[in-house]
Amino acid sequence: MFKNALAQAAEEVSTCLTNALSTYPDGPITDAMRYSVSGGKRLRAFLVIEGARLYGVYPRQSVWAAAAVEAMHAYSLVHDDLPCMDDDDLRRGLPTVHIKWDEATAVLTGDALQALAFDLLARPEAAPKAETRVELIQTMTKAAGARGMVRGQALDIAAESALTPLNLEEITELQAAKTGALIEWSAMAGAILAGQDVGPLRHYADALGLAFQIADDIMDVEGDAAKAGKRLGKDEDAGKATFVSLLGLDGAKARARELVAEAEAALAPFGDKAQNLRQAAQFVISRDS
Amino acid sequence: MFKNALAQAAEEVSTCLTNALSTYPDGPITDAMRYSVSGGKRLRAFLVIEGARLYGVYPRQSVWAAAAVEAMHAYSLVHDDLPCMDDDDLRRGLPTVHIKWDEATAVLTGDALQALAFDLLARPEAAPKAETRVELIQTMTKAAGARGMVRGQALDIAAESALTPLNLEEITELQAAKTGALIEWSAMAGAILAGQDVGPLRHYADALGLAFQIADDIMDVEGDAAKAGKRLGKDEDAGKATFVSLLGLDGAKARARELVAEAEAALAPFGDKAQNLRQAAQFVISRDS
Repeated sequence: MFKNALAQAAEEVSTCLTNALSTYPDGPITDAMRYSVSGGKRLRAFLVIEGARLYGVYPRQSVWAAAAVEAMHAYSLVHDDLPCMDDDDLRRGLPTVHIKWDEATAVLTGDALQALAFDLLARPEAAPKAETRVELIQTMTKAAGARGMVRGQALDIAAESALTPLNLEEITELQAAKTGALIEWSAMAGAILAGQDVGPLRHYADALGLAFQIADDIMDVEGDAAKAGKRLGKDEDAGKATFVSLLGLDGAKARARELVAEAEAALAPFGDKAQNLRQAAQFVISRDS
Repeated sequence: MFKNALAQAAEEVSTCLTNALSTYPDGPITDAMRYSVSGGKRLRAFLVIEGARLYGVYPRQSVWAAAAVEAMHAYSLVHDDLPCMDDDDLRRGLPTVHIKWDEATAVLTGDALQALAFDLLARPEAAPKAETRVELIQTMTKAAGARGMVRGQALDIAAESALTPLNLEEITELQAAKTGALIEWSAMAGAILAGQDVGPLRHYADALGLAFQIADDIMDVEGDAAKAGKRLGKDEDAGKATFVSLLGLDGAKARARELVAEAEAALAPFGDKAQNLRQAAQFVISRDS
């Protein structure tokens, strides 16, 4: 059921992004945008669509916010893979944008994907009321920019050249910004679309986001690069502090399970309607990519 | 009078940006954002504020849209200066962001400045009605992303490796996207803020944007690098087609004067109220930086 819902969300979001990009001018940037937004788990899109469903907002509306967060996520990956950042050649098992095209195209493609995310949120289809669209945009600028994701990336880069590895508090703050902010936005978007309090889903999202990152660190150590579709073991090679280096492998796994339980507990007020989101929390720590 | 209005707009926008960034978290990205949005002619901000004034919208409101377009412009400069793009060490007489910090910081700072632009447009201070803010955002995504500025940058990069130099039509299209789209948005924002037809100012802006670019090409050939605060002569060194290489120096100057006359003519319906915008058109082709 969860796997079906995840696949369904992925398909709806892909169609939405394909349609939106079909009105963009032909050229290498639009090609590289299409390339960058295809594939992936679409976990953020799934969170938007399932979160919205809890409040009675249908996928045909929430898919626009879901597509927006996937465009924003894709931009962050394209820039993150650049030689001056993480310098990765492979993403989702395919050459990264700066390898397939070149660095300039990768910079511009990321830039254009960020603008696309706001384009999608500003469209009437995203929400009938302009107030709602503005709130989605306002919260997105906070989650994605220098107060959220970009700040997390900067902290991550600073950590690489720091004299002492980060401690648990510092790495939790870093990850809350780097991946947590966009995951939190995804889970809260449904409540915003419905004009409801974002509180209950924020709690779910915070636990989920942290569990997601701990699972990433575990995968970096004991994962299968072929399944993950990207280079693994690179944090250890770089001598970076991770949840695994700080808590040990067993400790990290225990902490991830604890967080999944917290995420599930936060869904209690929603009863059976939140079954897919509960399974998503389990999925986050059992995935292999 | 025009010089005073330009200086006044610059000061108001600087204050607005400083205030907005004062709530951003401390760190190198926020520092580099402050650095990147300081200085510059603020021509785009001036166009927003003067365009809005024509429709009775006061600077205390239009300054938010003016600050947004300056943030967007600053992001484009930071990314444009990167080694994989134009590879410039100097901007406004100071080291570019990737020289003063590093490349990763420059990529992230540009990313954060784009998010800041949308943050500013989404704020209630930018326009009382949410509909108006959404329209500013929607038009901005078109002007700045893969349908506007980013497309122009990509065409510019493609031109560098093209086998034959661009012709006049191609270079006009390239420049209309690369610099014209954001200048056009700036001139039209006032009409959007006032809920009026953007037509008359669009015509002004299109002529102004092209005149601006021709003037840039002229300055690249006969300008003073110390006054311009950036490296000059680089288009000629790169063997790139410019308005000067295509029309000759005298032809380019004549075309720029013609476009300024067109821009002025488009302001006729506004009478004396548009005096500052008329002088702005003159300024665009007489500036030395």
